[in-house]
Amino acid sequence: MNIVVGQSGGPTAVINSSIAGVYAQAKKLGVEHVYGMVHGIEGFLEDKLCDMDSYFSDPINIELLKRTPSAFLGSCRFKMPKIEGHEDVYDKVFEIMEKHNIDILFYAGGNDSMDTVKMLSDYAAAHGKKQRFMGVPKTIDNDLPITDHCPGYGSAAKYIATSIKEVIRDNESFGAKKPTVCIIEIMGRNAGWLTAAAALAKGDDCSGCDAIYLPEVDFNMDEFMATVKDLSVRKSSVVIAVSEGVHLADGKYVCELANENVAVDAFGHKQMSGTAAFLAQAVAAETGLKTRAIELSTLQRAATHLASLTDINEAFQSGADAMQAAYDGHTGEMVIFKRDSQNPYECGTATYDIHEIANVEKKVPLEWITADKKGLTQEYINYARPLIMGELTPVFVDGLPRHIVMKELFD
Amino acid sequence: MNIVVGQSGGPTAVINSSIAGVYAQAKKLGVEHVYGMVHGIEGFLEDKLCDMDSYFSDPINIELLKRTPSAFLGSCRFKMPKIEGHEDVYDKVFEIMEKHNIDILFYAGGNDSMDTVKMLSDYAAAHGKKQRFMGVPKTIDNDLPITDHCPGYGSAAKYIATSIKEVIRDNESFGAKKPTVCIIEIMGRNAGWLTAAAALAKGDDCSGCDAIYLPEVDFNMDEFMATVKDLSVRKSSVVIAVSEGVHLADGKYVCELANENVAVDAFGHKQMSGTAAFLAQAVAAETGLKTRAIELSTLQRAATHLASLTDINEAFQSGADAMQAAYDGHTGEMVIFKRDSQNPYECGTATYDIHEIANVEKKVPLEWITADKKGLTQEYINYARPLIMGELTPVFVDGLPRHIVMKELFD
Repeated sequence: MNIVVGQSGGPTAVINSSIAGVYAQAKKLGVEHVYGMVHGIEGFLEDKLCDMDSYFSDPINIELLKRTPSAFLGSCRFKMPKIEGHEDVYDKVFEIMEKHNIDILFYAGGNDSMDTVKMLSDYAAAHGKKQRFMGVPKTIDNDLPITDHCPGYGSAAKYIATSIKEVIRDNESFGAKKPTVCIIEIMGRNAGWLTAAAALAKGDDCSGCDAIYLPEVDFNMDEFMATVKDLSVRKSSVVIAVSEGVHLADGKYVCELANENVAVDAFGHKQMSGTAAFLAQAVAAETGLKTRAIELSTLQRAATHLASLTDINEAFQSGADAMQAAYDGHTGEMVIFKRDSQNPYECGTATYDIHEIANVEKKVPLEWITADKKGLTQEYINYARPLIMGELTPVFVDGLPRHIVMKELFD
Repeated sequence: MNIVVGQSGGPTAVINSSIAGVYAQAKKLGVEHVYGMVHGIEGFLEDKLCDMDSYFSDPINIELLKRTPSAFLGSCRFKMPKIEGHEDVYDKVFEIMEKHNIDILFYAGGNDSMDTVKMLSDYAAAHGKKQRFMGVPKTIDNDLPITDHCPGYGSAAKYIATSIKEVIRDNESFGAKKPTVCIIEIMGRNAGWLTAAAALAKGDDCSGCDAIYLPEVDFNMDEFMATVKDLSVRKSSVVIAVSEGVHLADGKYVCELANENVAVDAFGHKQMSGTAAFLAQAVAAETGLKTRAIELSTLQRAATHLASLTDINEAFQSGADAMQAAYDGHTGEMVIFKRDSQNPYECGTATYDIHEIANVEKKVPLEWITADKKGLTQEYINYARPLIMGELTPVFVDGLPRHIVMKELFD
């Protein structure tokens, strides 16, 4: 048996742990060749493969892989066309699988990537192909349905909460009579999971964010400005978290107020940026207060140096369980997490029909947002806290975390 | 003997280690009361003091202090007025010192803060006052003269190099035919030390930044655009580091090209921001390439979770040695670092006349900038590498680094 593994979409801190899990379980099950797609399905269509054995027969490299951010195999943002009228693209995938005697294709990614798994397994079913296709969940956005949570989220949440805690320390240190208003922009186009993680900063040693604006709630400039003014007379430091995806009641994104010409990617998603800068300028203009805008940008999905050990282990497990399930004959499914117990935290995996998952977005439940619409309830904290627990110490060489890099990325 | 310690200016990841060093050495020498200024000299002038013994008689809290970012005691951006005509302000400082029987005042900060030490020690000398004043170096900017380097720099450099390495991983993972151009903005108004740290990302496992623009070199938009275009046809990922302080030959800051109305702080310094966003927009408009702007903002001075152990230990040492020197009778001086050996790295301390230090900025030597003006030489790497070595594991509670917070900050 031979298999191929691909990574797709925006990277995370632990997507490499997922493919480490697939690899390790494959070898345990006696899989002969484990191929990697160089740059996901886009590279696969050009027959760009790497031999994962050449990197990972030495187990130290598996440990480095767990500590390497982003997609080791390379990623892509390639949307499979609809089958009808584009059979040639699908035939090409199967032709390359057959050329290398590949029995199973694993794809680690989010909503868009699961669509690829769905289309390929549908095509196989319709054309009597025996190859299997399995999805491995990955997204910092945590917006895949059915599964309790997604690998990648816990590490991003840990980084966001840690960084915000550090920024709050910084902002609180100044003793000016009027506070600096610091606005932190966090990723998440439609789902506020990442921004919600700002709520985790609060604790015995930190008063936390003063307001948290999720995209699940319509954003209102007047309300926002009134909140800032109220906070600024009561507090010596004001720190506010906003999702890049906050939008007005008419659906217009706040970042579009700053820049009408927001770029659009291959999936038709607008590329957000500049929400915090726009709001900080608006606050400065309206109140005269000193402001600061911080955009966590790609740092929040790449900070493997601060990854959650729970997340790393679960990513690894999801890869291993995807391998086992496909080996056992499953296809057209994705590994999901099922929380068996909250306290102590216990979480198992299962597999689930990809048709129920692809292209569906799971948002933060409205009942987990506080009545004032500017915070998260204890239910959210109880949900998220276990996901950020534990650390995996980086291997430091010359003062910096050591990564493992695939030479084929640069060919 | 009683002493008081204050922190001033932009915080760093290790300025708390400096005051930990003052405190620990003071207790060793039998100092009775160690007071802290709440919000630096600004709070001191209002007699806002805290009792450091109430926090640090338990040594675990010293360990937490080393792991807490920003200024535990609170900071300020207060400029002492010139003595002539403002004797009342100076008299007030001595009145408060005398009220609490304070013999020595320690002030941890950068150029502006050392000016405060100079003015106070000058006033004491001119008026026959016996109190002593000692500076403890602190600045992520690394721009204090005489000293080999400044506590705070090593940790900021470690964070910058680590984050850039992670961003490079992220940017490299995409397999688009045209690269994403990622522009990372790093602090440093006039001195490029922090931006230079981007050069540390390069290693066996990382190709490093493609260009590094320091404020020591005049910035030229045409040259920059030509560099980006050249890189974009040769490489599948382009990552460029720019100082927030890059400026055109006529002295105009690049960030002023984006925003004419740059705010100015109490010291007359312009508040920089938006350089990367401006350059990214310019590149997108000129080339049609996908761009991303990342501003490391206050994250780079607050990321104690990734502090350099060398830096923490040296900050602690500089505080302890300041205490010892003042105890021995020194005044009007700052602790400096003297590098005795490069390999192995060995660095001692001494004290130095504050008049030679206050208000003087040390820039990156031009001979450490490569001939193409877009990189750093091996001499810089040799200088900076030892400063980022080692780590001090945070104490994680509930998945996040634990801090110690002074309740008087919120009174």
